[in-house]
Amino acid sequence: MKRIAVLTSGGDAPGMNAAIRAVVLASHYFGVQVIGYRHGFNGLLEQEYQILQSSDVNNIIQRGGTILKSARCQAFTTDEGGRQAADNLTALEIDALIIIGGDGSFRGAVHLGRFWSGKILGLPGTIDNDINGTDATIGYYTAIDTALESIDRVRDTADAFERIFLIEVMGRHAGFIGLSAAVCSGAEQVLLPELFTDNLPDLDSLAGHIQTAQKIRGKCSYIMVVSENIWPGGVMDLADQLHQRTGIDCRPVILGHVQRGGSPVSLDRILASKLGVYAVEAARTGKTGIMIGEHNQQMVEVPFQDTWNQAKALDPYLLHIQQETFDLVKNSNNP
Amino acid sequence: MKRIAVLTSGGDAPGMNAAIRAVVLASHYFGVQVIGYRHGFNGLLEQEYQILQSSDVNNIIQRGGTILKSARCQAFTTDEGGRQAADNLTALEIDALIIIGGDGSFRGAVHLGRFWSGKILGLPGTIDNDINGTDATIGYYTAIDTALESIDRVRDTADAFERIFLIEVMGRHAGFIGLSAAVCSGAEQVLLPELFTDNLPDLDSLAGHIQTAQKIRGKCSYIMVVSENIWPGGVMDLADQLHQRTGIDCRPVILGHVQRGGSPVSLDRILASKLGVYAVEAARTGKTGIMIGEHNQQMVEVPFQDTWNQAKALDPYLLHIQQETFDLVKNSNNP
Amino acid sequence: MKRIAVLTSGGDAPGMNAAIRAVVLASHYFGVQVIGYRHGFNGLLEQEYQILQSSDVNNIIQRGGTILKSARCQAFTTDEGGRQAADNLTALEIDALIIIGGDGSFRGAVHLGRFWSGKILGLPGTIDNDINGTDATIGYYTAIDTALESIDRVRDTADAFERIFLIEVMGRHAGFIGLSAAVCSGAEQVLLPELFTDNLPDLDSLAGHIQTAQKIRGKCSYIMVVSENIWPGGVMDLADQLHQRTGIDCRPVILGHVQRGGSPVSLDRILASKLGVYAVEAARTGKTGIMIGEHNQQMVEVPFQDTWNQAKALDPYLLHIQQETFDLVKNSNNP
Amino acid sequence: MKRIAVLTSGGDAPGMNAAIRAVVLASHYFGVQVIGYRHGFNGLLEQEYQILQSSDVNNIIQRGGTILKSARCQAFTTDEGGRQAADNLTALEIDALIIIGGDGSFRGAVHLGRFWSGKILGLPGTIDNDINGTDATIGYYTAIDTALESIDRVRDTADAFERIFLIEVMGRHAGFIGLSAAVCSGAEQVLLPELFTDNLPDLDSLAGHIQTAQKIRGKCSYIMVVSENIWPGGVMDLADQLHQRTGIDCRPVILGHVQRGGSPVSLDRILASKLGVYAVEAARTGKTGIMIGEHNQQMVEVPFQDTWNQAKALDPYLLHIQQETFDLVKNSNNP
Repeated sequence: MKRIAVLTSGGDAPGMNAAIRAVVLASHYFGVQVIGYRHGFNGLLEQEYQILQSSDVNNIIQRGGTILKSARCQAFTTDEGGRQAADNLTALEIDALIIIGGDGSFRGAVHLGRFWSGKILGLPGTIDNDINGTDATIGYYTAIDTALESIDRVRDTADAFERIFLIEVMGRHAGFIGLSAAVCSGAEQVLLPELFTDNLPDLDSLAGHIQTAQKIRGKCSYIMVVSENIWPGGVMDLADQLHQRTGIDCRPVILGHVQRGGSPVSLDRILASKLGVYAVEAARTGKTGIMIGEHNQQMVEVPFQDTWNQAKALDPYLLHIQQETFDLVKNSNNP
Repeated sequence: MKRIAVLTSGGDAPGMNAAIRAVVLASHYFGVQVIGYRHGFNGLLEQEYQILQSSDVNNIIQRGGTILKSARCQAFTTDEGGRQAADNLTALEIDALIIIGGDGSFRGAVHLGRFWSGKILGLPGTIDNDINGTDATIGYYTAIDTALESIDRVRDTADAFERIFLIEVMGRHAGFIGLSAAVCSGAEQVLLPELFTDNLPDLDSLAGHIQTAQKIRGKCSYIMVVSENIWPGGVMDLADQLHQRTGIDCRPVILGHVQRGGSPVSLDRILASKLGVYAVEAARTGKTGIMIGEHNQQMVEVPFQDTWNQAKALDPYLLHIQQETFDLVKNSNNP
Repeated sequence: MKRIAVLTSGGDAPGMNAAIRAVVLASHYFGVQVIGYRHGFNGLLEQEYQILQSSDVNNIIQRGGTILKSARCQAFTTDEGGRQAADNLTALEIDALIIIGGDGSFRGAVHLGRFWSGKILGLPGTIDNDINGTDATIGYYTAIDTALESIDRVRDTADAFERIFLIEVMGRHAGFIGLSAAVCSGAEQVLLPELFTDNLPDLDSLAGHIQTAQKIRGKCSYIMVVSENIWPGGVMDLADQLHQRTGIDCRPVILGHVQRGGSPVSLDRILASKLGVYAVEAARTGKTGIMIGEHNQQMVEVPFQDTWNQAKALDPYLLHIQQETFDLVKNSNNP
Repeated sequence: MKRIAVLTSGGDAPGMNAAIRAVVLASHYFGVQVIGYRHGFNGLLEQEYQILQSSDVNNIIQRGGTILKSARCQAFTTDEGGRQAADNLTALEIDALIIIGGDGSFRGAVHLGRFWSGKILGLPGTIDNDINGTDATIGYYTAIDTALESIDRVRDTADAFERIFLIEVMGRHAGFIGLSAAVCSGAEQVLLPELFTDNLPDLDSLAGHIQTAQKIRGKCSYIMVVSENIWPGGVMDLADQLHQRTGIDCRPVILGHVQRGGSPVSLDRILASKLGVYAVEAARTGKTGIMIGEHNQQMVEVPFQDTWNQAKALDPYLLHIQQETFDLVKNSNNP
């Protein structure tokens, strides 16, 4: 193998740079040259790339974002796009392409595989952690801590004013960030997509929980963590509705894109480093059509289709303690 | 002097606990007892208070929020409320009351002075920094850093995607947080209340600035810091409007209540400590009707009315460098 | 079961408070009262304890240290101490005792079991992660991030001056913090106790690595992460030795006790919450003589002896990438 | 004016990059080209430089260290060195040189002025804040917060174990970091160079303070902040001495180089931005031989000699509250 290419695609996630660095250093370890495509699949189509030297990845392990930039790319999803990309890869004599991104990026990888016979490998890079086959995705750990830090801050005000706050976190179709952020911030309530697949949250029951909490503990702070997209109109509308029903002031906070950035925490750097090196090692032994993941402390190879065919489940025990053990209403009969 | 009371009122701000601690330790230094009223002026009306021992303020200097809680209180603003509060203070033989809060709290202080002859002193506690007579208010420094940390994170994504972000920061009537956050995050644009007292920002000119930026630098990240309440509908609506005019994707981020909380940064702890001690010293020498502030590195005593009669001006040089020197359009003719 | 007791023992670790909170809330969920002993086993001997109400654990999930205090206790390790502790537990009608600490604390648990027939359970609480049977210990994740944050800062100076820094991290007998901190800070060299069980690091080879690095890359920054206790005289002496051998300025930094404190990161709060709840559930079903851990995403019950009989191994793949793939000398032949 | 040069010299400080960026953007605003010398005065001697484009300073405002690198340079201090530097500046047709550094760098500036007739301006960049004529130096604010964050962490352990910690902070000849860190961490004791100009701290009195504290409050945490270089052998030796005298366990922590790095806090970025722009404006109007500072919210021009001729005094009121009001022994008679 003489030349490996790497690109980042889809939403950016902290740790993508650590993964790029790992790919580059591992390739150099084996004497393989690395090409970095810029702007995701766009770079592949438009031959926007650069040779990545060791010095290019020096001191990037700690940086958020991605030095290769990212982008969405409609043109690539067509047959013509796939063929163009394949031609470009062939022209550059690329032996393997490593794609860092989410499930949309992996669908792109499969699409490319119809037109190009080189090795294609994926690394799970998304804060949402909604990729099956790996225990965690690059960026997930940092996103939880970022959300947590913000909720800890809101708790200060909530406590000072004994107020209700609704905090919207990221996770379009998956409640990983929401559940983790709720447990570790000691949130009084959490609304996750997995709990409301066919219906909306029940306003009366939500309002009732708030009111019971205030009966039990007196006026007090109350934090509800809400995954985005669960409630039409978001937490702003939900806060209004709850205010109307309870007469209690409810404040919405939308954490938003803040959750995507920042210097990656240690676990994201470690995960990205391991995945990046392993991907190069796997490419050298001829592996293709797989995402590299980590499951139960072992590096694993997951066929691309399996990464999205099955939804990854939330940790049932974590859900149990948040919704049962730590529920303040169920906890009200203090001995 | 035998007994001092202290309360926190209005929006909470990081450093309020450091100020409470300073009041307590300074009072004890002089052998004076301290009463802490809870929930702002409500506690004064409802005699909700506690004696504050040194151990009560041990290890609180680093905590956000306020251990005395805060609240708004309509009842207090009536004559009846003022009289009731005065009676309660007299009944407890309080010699001096120290109020930590914003200009609303200081108006309350003046109101109380009509009914009570004890000494009344104020400490500026608000993240907005919109109190005349003191260079900074308790909580302001932390709020800038909190906003900055969030914007630094958004910049990572903005850069990775070369995207436009509109970031709404606190500061209802004053652009202190907005201007500081813009300069120190290297924001490409800033909208402050001081710049739009009689009018709305000009959409065409905002859109034009974005488009010129992209002409000069190619597609690139662009961050606009926007003080709350400047644009009807907030940054969500403004982002829509700019998108319609430019065709470029603009993402809104509302930092919101996150800016109010968190462990105070060093300068807020230092300011709060100095103001708290000085307030006790001033009360002992018979001072009343004043806010304690710091101006040009000197402790100052500011009559309550002066704290709101005159608007505090933004740093003109800081405004100059943000709007002139650092403006990327004016900077486009790189030599 | 009517009454559970909890204590923290040995070195404190971020997340101990989250564990105490989980034990209290889970107990209350089952209608069980909780007694908190103070100062570790000392409190058991001297009957220093308090009933823990829900309000006592409100808002402590985010705090470092331990609200129950910790301490070493020689007296407890004698037969007399064990008997006294047993008598005290019996007198208070304690059904189960939950001990949060490291392997020394678990030896104490076994000792107590010789004299007391109540249920005894342990939760792994130590930043060192040197407890067999659980993938991570409470506090470990925070310690890595704390070390990392400091090393990231040192890297700034190292880069500005192109200097050599030796950074001593905690981990008396185990290199978990050292290895993780090295990988995620992109350290050029790491010295771990597991690599030098019978001998000292070879000065010539360390010096040679530094010199080769500077030959390959020119003058540049170079960070060596060193676990405490590996080198007699610590990094101060090691830095001197290397300076003498290479003539290159080497600066020592000892991170020290800073690594023990701070608000726990999300993963430590989550781990502590799960372990704490599970311990109460296990006690209710009659389990005793075990540490609760988490292994491969499952809650596990580990007999106390197994927690120290076998040394927990470092992640071999992580060691591989740090010492092979990321070694800058082995990486020097950039294609 | 056609060409400005900039360099960073002496110890690095967070915010140096923000200052470089400000110099570059302000120069471009006026159509002036910027040359960046690397490795401080070494780059001047060895003509190691680069033209700085706007894109070179894009996204560096948040980075610690200095993109121009820093270094000590003996050769420059000779007459020959000064002449060589002058020749090189003349050869490159540099109109003005802006030096970012501490008082050693400003002495270098004066030295250069003997041989070169171009304009020479300085920006105060050092964490120590020991430069006369400016209220703060670039990097000082970040260093306090970094020290504070570490001491807050140590306090967690100190509290859990009710232990004595001695924490050594930077500030070779000036106690600015020490005093600020002590006040805002609520330290029980502080040792600053300004307090011990002719003598060593009195061991008996230090030991007595610790013992009295434990008499008054019972066993409790106790933090002593110590500026480096006050005690021969540093805090390690001082901790030993105090242990011998009191029999109480005293733990040393040396914060060290960690204090030099990290992303600059907002105030350092703001200060650096203002100083950098003002320096370019001043150079354009023909100013030379001065350091740009900020005093009482005004930009000031300080002749180089004045920056070191007079020692800058600690804030007397801050010293007063730390040593008098907040002294726990003087505070012991709680009413």
